[in-house]
Amino acid sequence: MNQCTFVILGATGDLTKRKLIPAMYHLIKKNKIKNFALVGAAITDTTIQDVLQKSQKFIQKPDRKVWKQLEQSSYYCQLDFHNQNDFQKLQKLLIRVEKKHKLPGNRIFYLATLPEHFETITANLSKNKIVQKGKQTLWSRVVYEKPFGHDLKSARKINRCIAKLFDESQVYRIDHFLLEELVTNIALVRFSNLFFEPLWNNKYIESVQIVLHEKIGIEGRGAFYDHYGALKDVVQNHMLQMLALIAMEPPKKLSGEYIRDAKVRVLKRVQHNDILLGQYKEYQDERGVNPKSRTETFTALRLEIANRRWKGVPFFLKTGKCLSKKETSIHIKFKNPTCLQQDCPAESNYLTIQIQPREGFYLQVNTKIPGETHNVTPVKMDFCHACHFGPNTPQAYETLLSEVLEGDHSVFVRFDEIEYSWKLIDKILAKKHPIYTYKKNTDGPKQLAIFNKKNNIRWRT
Amino acid sequence: MNQCTFVILGATGDLTKRKLIPAMYHLIKKNKIKNFALVGAAITDTTIQDVLQKSQKFIQKPDRKVWKQLEQSSYYCQLDFHNQNDFQKLQKLLIRVEKKHKLPGNRIFYLATLPEHFETITANLSKNKIVQKGKQTLWSRVVYEKPFGHDLKSARKINRCIAKLFDESQVYRIDHFLLEELVTNIALVRFSNLFFEPLWNNKYIESVQIVLHEKIGIEGRGAFYDHYGALKDVVQNHMLQMLALIAMEPPKKLSGEYIRDAKVRVLKRVQHNDILLGQYKEYQDERGVNPKSRTETFTALRLEIANRRWKGVPFFLKTGKCLSKKETSIHIKFKNPTCLQQDCPAESNYLTIQIQPREGFYLQVNTKIPGETHNVTPVKMDFCHACHFGPNTPQAYETLLSEVLEGDHSVFVRFDEIEYSWKLIDKILAKKHPIYTYKKNTDGPKQLAIFNKKNNIRWRT
Repeated sequence: MNQCTFVILGATGDLTKRKLIPAMYHLIKKNKIKNFALVGAAITDTTIQDVLQKSQKFIQKPDRKVWKQLEQSSYYCQLDFHNQNDFQKLQKLLIRVEKKHKLPGNRIFYLATLPEHFETITANLSKNKIVQKGKQTLWSRVVYEKPFGHDLKSARKINRCIAKLFDESQVYRIDHFLLEELVTNIALVRFSNLFFEPLWNNKYIESVQIVLHEKIGIEGRGAFYDHYGALKDVVQNHMLQMLALIAMEPPKKLSGEYIRDAKVRVLKRVQHNDILLGQYKEYQDERGVNPKSRTETFTALRLEIANRRWKGVPFFLKTGKCLSKKETSIHIKFKNPTCLQQDCPAESNYLTIQIQPREGFYLQVNTKIPGETHNVTPVKMDFCHACHFGPNTPQAYETLLSEVLEGDHSVFVRFDEIEYSWKLIDKILAKKHPIYTYKKNTDGPKQLAIFNKKNNIRWRT
Repeated sequence: MNQCTFVILGATGDLTKRKLIPAMYHLIKKNKIKNFALVGAAITDTTIQDVLQKSQKFIQKPDRKVWKQLEQSSYYCQLDFHNQNDFQKLQKLLIRVEKKHKLPGNRIFYLATLPEHFETITANLSKNKIVQKGKQTLWSRVVYEKPFGHDLKSARKINRCIAKLFDESQVYRIDHFLLEELVTNIALVRFSNLFFEPLWNNKYIESVQIVLHEKIGIEGRGAFYDHYGALKDVVQNHMLQMLALIAMEPPKKLSGEYIRDAKVRVLKRVQHNDILLGQYKEYQDERGVNPKSRTETFTALRLEIANRRWKGVPFFLKTGKCLSKKETSIHIKFKNPTCLQQDCPAESNYLTIQIQPREGFYLQVNTKIPGETHNVTPVKMDFCHACHFGPNTPQAYETLLSEVLEGDHSVFVRFDEIEYSWKLIDKILAKKHPIYTYKKNTDGPKQLAIFNKKNNIRWRT
């Protein structure tokens, strides 16, 4: 099972450097991959030594022996995604490498590129028989990074191309957020504890908040980002995936297709009521950005889910770049119970799932103030994931690669999920919304206060 | 309000020394009582200096100024509970002291004696017009320590005497456990959080455990204890009170009479199914104990509550002296949810209310094991009361005295509660149960294993 050739297309990019090579390194170190080869491919004229070198600083204290093992099994192939000869060259290299390392020929292709290249690469991998459709004695799996297209139309076009050439079982569409420990945990915590599910509906839940705040800006990715913006970059995928996991009906089983079925059913029912867009002040001066750009780097949304369970419960989403604090979390606000004591509790109960930076979850509950008979105060019941399990929780991309290696689709996104997410985003963007500027290192545009007041929302940060 | 004369009857006893004087000291220190006098009364020929002196070691680093204030306002009266002249002498002393300290004449009488003396003292306080029945311009309040009698008959006899001579509003029957921070917290936590009440019934709760483990033995109280035993000493009062707070229906309001009504209604419905009695090996050699004593120093009980909410939910109680560890806690075990994942959670959810020694509460929930996709492991969501509020939580007796001073009956026991508790204990003791010996510093008699197996109970300690 763990004998495999890894091929990264887009090997000189940021993702490869920051995430994929370090993930490979950790998998080798943990003995999760033993016999393997890594082939990097990109248009740049470079060497595998150089590619690996640039990645080294993203690994804490690399073990020399493990690093050497990685170096000795890694190769580079200069490749233009449009050039058939280059793909032939890649195929020859793969055969040679597999022979040398006594590998059976099972292959994982990781498309760490912009979605514009997905169709071309897919077509050329197929045309040059590097990946063959359907179940073979040897398998080939193809991994597509997010974003999957830039709207419903482009996503459908990419998918038509893939569906024609590959079997769905070979295809892995990524949302690396689904690999974050605490995101993977959502469904398990909901369904393996009696505490939560009986309360998980509009009778007991008042509202849900999902926030994804970034302190960093667009970090040189101006040309890319300016065509996307916050809604397409993180709401369509990460944030709607989190919403789907929180809101889905209990699946028949907690496994791949059942979970995806449940997510799709809820994504179909998402409607938007209100939106606020923002752009940080210096954005238009960033390299690669249109000086008159109207791309949003901030958004606050009010969504609702039109089904029996969630009728009347607003789902608030908020995300932005260059905000004052990095944080990803989900806050479930419960209704107040009927008040029996003289002094009613001022604060509602909350369940918080903290995804980044300090993984964990906690409940805010009311308890008596010592020495007073009737007054309560909110306190936190805390489960600190990092404190309990230690800091060795595998990184998202590490889990991701091992799931592809195992052939498990549970944590990957099915096309119909992507489809319904794009439908919502397209609908939101069909109308032109005003864009308000905000200062870096703040909580967003000043107009947020109006949005908050109108929607009766107090953000939990 | 805080101008008052405190009279302790039984001033040379253990309770006065260990609890009442230190509580007075802390109330003075916190400025909760300002103008006051303390009169200690007992049969011993001693001085107030001596009484106070013996109590000093139960106060951590006493403040000299506060201690002096206490000394300067304290008096002693030698008093035989059966002697009318002595009560006349007490009355004269009280009048003199109140004049000297410019006190209006509001009085609290604290009967820190064995219940055998309750009737005599009550009668003589009334006969000598030291306490007058009903509402006067000045109030007199009378506090009765637990145990209130030793069975239903004796409790009723004491109460008839009190009811004839005093107004119910003047009477404070103590169960100091009701003053423990985390016990007072039970009702507030249940009813001021949305989390718990919807789950608080036989649909979601599998069983409830209440344990009160003592490491200490009978500590020289042999003559007293041998007439009582675990069932009368702690089950009838402390443990059934905790059970009542956990099991009661929501009262109309979280205040005195409503809570007591709700507790009585549930105490009426308590039935017992199974019992195990134990006695530690050295018990019969203790001073004051009958060498052939059959008094239990340990008991495990299985109770049920015959109402709609609790039908089918066993309540397990366990208490004992000379056990391996001091601990008082309540564990609510929830049923398992329908299992959706491949590997079902091995552990149920628990809500634990830890009363002693480390005050707090926690939830045991299941969470994903990092790096694994489907396996869960139980973890604790913790609220450490002491860590959050600091170690300055007032002691039970301190709260108790200030509640009497405020005239608030919420945390005191009404006679019908005592009545139904004794009914249950009398019923249990009407049948002769075998008594099994156990070694000190263990978890009780070996036969507990049989009890546990029969009742399918795994204790959480």
